[in-house]
Amino acid sequence: MRILVLGMDGYLGWAITNYLAREPFELTGTDNFYRRKWVKEMKSVSAIPISSMKGRVKKYEQFYGRKLEFHKGDITDYSFLSELVKNTRPDVIIHFAQCPSAPYSMIDQIKTVFVQQNNLVGTLNLVYAVKEHAPGAHIVKLGTMGEYGTPNLDIPEGFFEIEYRGRKDRLPFPRQANSWYHLSKVHDSNNLQFACRNYGIRCTDIMQGIVFGFHAGSSGDRSLFTRLDFDQAFGTIINRFCCEAIIHHAITVYGDGTQIRSFLPLNDSMKCIRLVIENPPAPGEYRVVNQFANVHSAAGLAEKVSSICKEEGMDVEISRIRNPRKEAEHHYYNPDNQNLRNLGYEPAANFDEEIQKLIKGLKPYKKRIAKYEQILNPTIRW
Amino acid sequence: MRILVLGMDGYLGWAITNYLAREPFELTGTDNFYRRKWVKEMKSVSAIPISSMKGRVKKYEQFYGRKLEFHKGDITDYSFLSELVKNTRPDVIIHFAQCPSAPYSMIDQIKTVFVQQNNLVGTLNLVYAVKEHAPGAHIVKLGTMGEYGTPNLDIPEGFFEIEYRGRKDRLPFPRQANSWYHLSKVHDSNNLQFACRNYGIRCTDIMQGIVFGFHAGSSGDRSLFTRLDFDQAFGTIINRFCCEAIIHHAITVYGDGTQIRSFLPLNDSMKCIRLVIENPPAPGEYRVVNQFANVHSAAGLAEKVSSICKEEGMDVEISRIRNPRKEAEHHYYNPDNQNLRNLGYEPAANFDEEIQKLIKGLKPYKKRIAKYEQILNPTIRW
Repeated sequence: MRILVLGMDGYLGWAITNYLAREPFELTGTDNFYRRKWVKEMKSVSAIPISSMKGRVKKYEQFYGRKLEFHKGDITDYSFLSELVKNTRPDVIIHFAQCPSAPYSMIDQIKTVFVQQNNLVGTLNLVYAVKEHAPGAHIVKLGTMGEYGTPNLDIPEGFFEIEYRGRKDRLPFPRQANSWYHLSKVHDSNNLQFACRNYGIRCTDIMQGIVFGFHAGSSGDRSLFTRLDFDQAFGTIINRFCCEAIIHHAITVYGDGTQIRSFLPLNDSMKCIRLVIENPPAPGEYRVVNQFANVHSAAGLAEKVSSICKEEGMDVEISRIRNPRKEAEHHYYNPDNQNLRNLGYEPAANFDEEIQKLIKGLKPYKKRIAKYEQILNPTIRW
Repeated sequence: MRILVLGMDGYLGWAITNYLAREPFELTGTDNFYRRKWVKEMKSVSAIPISSMKGRVKKYEQFYGRKLEFHKGDITDYSFLSELVKNTRPDVIIHFAQCPSAPYSMIDQIKTVFVQQNNLVGTLNLVYAVKEHAPGAHIVKLGTMGEYGTPNLDIPEGFFEIEYRGRKDRLPFPRQANSWYHLSKVHDSNNLQFACRNYGIRCTDIMQGIVFGFHAGSSGDRSLFTRLDFDQAFGTIINRFCCEAIIHHAITVYGDGTQIRSFLPLNDSMKCIRLVIENPPAPGEYRVVNQFANVHSAAGLAEKVSSICKEEGMDVEISRIRNPRKEAEHHYYNPDNQNLRNLGYEPAANFDEEIQKLIKGLKPYKKRIAKYEQILNPTIRW
């Protein structure tokens, strides 16, 4: 099986490249290295030191004893992507090549337009490249649970059967995203749904919960770890909490902390993606899976991180700060995740242990993180 | 009241500029003249001869005895739009500055990316310009009934109350658009809904049916008529049927002709927009109105046009051609349009008379249209 990974240098891209390293898949990757640029713009770094892509590839080839093909490029450049797909003839294309930050997209007009344009054009180009050069390829696209927002209903997986004024239909579940970034993912979902229907393309659209941690599979060597961000834009909540805790900074909960979201450890995300790859949808099918292990409130997670730290002998405070985001703090939240379970997904047996693993794993990088303490307070507000 | 018209040189933009000419509104307009360029790309012209914008403004000022401010520019250029909004300080912004063609958006990768990018970036820029310089302004945005697709349910206006697994909520009605262009409008709807919620902007999003005709209000002078297209990309169905009929070309129905859509005469569209302007939503409100007079099947309209032609002494055939589009030909269709009726809209008393008016109005341009007979067969397929 030939797999093309778009966004190979990112948090999930580099993780999946390692996770699949011992499998009989041929991997080819591409990236424009924007994640590095964006985190620098946030005046931050990855908590885990990472080398250049050249260094990563070299180490990867030594460690796993296999070749890794990488091509630097930007998928919003159609001629680049089109050539890449043509030359690779992939069976699967994992599309992680997007700007994944809500706060980043909310900074100003330039960032808003950039994020929506970058994410949309990349996906549209991918649709055309697949249609032209790899019509049977399975597009594995990363969406987000944030596309759904927080409706006062259960959240099904992409579609639902409803009755309205005495008639029935199966329709896309309405999306109510809460940032320009999340909206870009909604637009992509709508575009991909049409692409499947119209061109017979097959796609799995993963509505992913918030991922944490940097351990995935057996990527034993430190120098092969994926990045882990903790800045206000690219540091997602558990990763950020743990980085705060490790340097004895208070864990900063936005608002009441009663916002509920869905979460999963990085290793679970990798497991799911593998299951998705091994069980492709039919040609023309647009399949949606909700990918997460558990739901938690922000305050609940802060408590969790704090009490795990206590076990580790660290005393960490929790501090509630004014919510920089406009979001419902008290809401119903009950999403399904049966589709992946049907493919064989079993959430990590012990969620707390996964957090503990992250905290322990961050210890060697305490000094490195501490240098960036001043960036932990959010300045991007909406 | 100060009104800024984005896309003033287009089919609806020039019509509304004339329709409101005798009202105590201060009108300012902008356009990048792309509609002229696109129709030229389709190797066609407007059936109604139109002069340059300079000529239009001059004639307008003579005819109505009032000034008309016009600024050439592209709203995807934020500095241009931002300055324009800042200097105009409009109470209302009518946003007609988009590429409005499904077939055009389906031509190839370049057109797909262009249409989505052009339409989205223009609207995002507008949101920011309003937020910065005219936060109370009412955005009157043109969407399309095509955003909804053809679900097997009644189509409400933007939102619906539903029960699902024993819980209730009011949610956006799911959209199932059937072209990259229609999807660009869906993306805009989602973006605007968020902009209202997040920035307190007020917006009326008009889900407009398919408009026909070129008579609007009392724009008596021929040289002030708006354009009317009949090519495969910009010629919408009734306008195209009538242009075909007038040159004794067969009326070309796509497929079975059992597709049902919603329609309204240009004058009704203008009436509705005026009602919307005069009855703005509250700050922060995202209001959706479905704007149409009647629903008809394509085949039914062909019959109508043919029998009206007969009354006019013209014998016109109907020809069924292979449907160039992928669309359901047999489907349920029952959209609401109560919101505009609540504001005072009464659909034109006699729909057939409106078609007759169009056919009569086209007679002087028969020779002009006949020159383009060879472009009447659709070549853009999807």
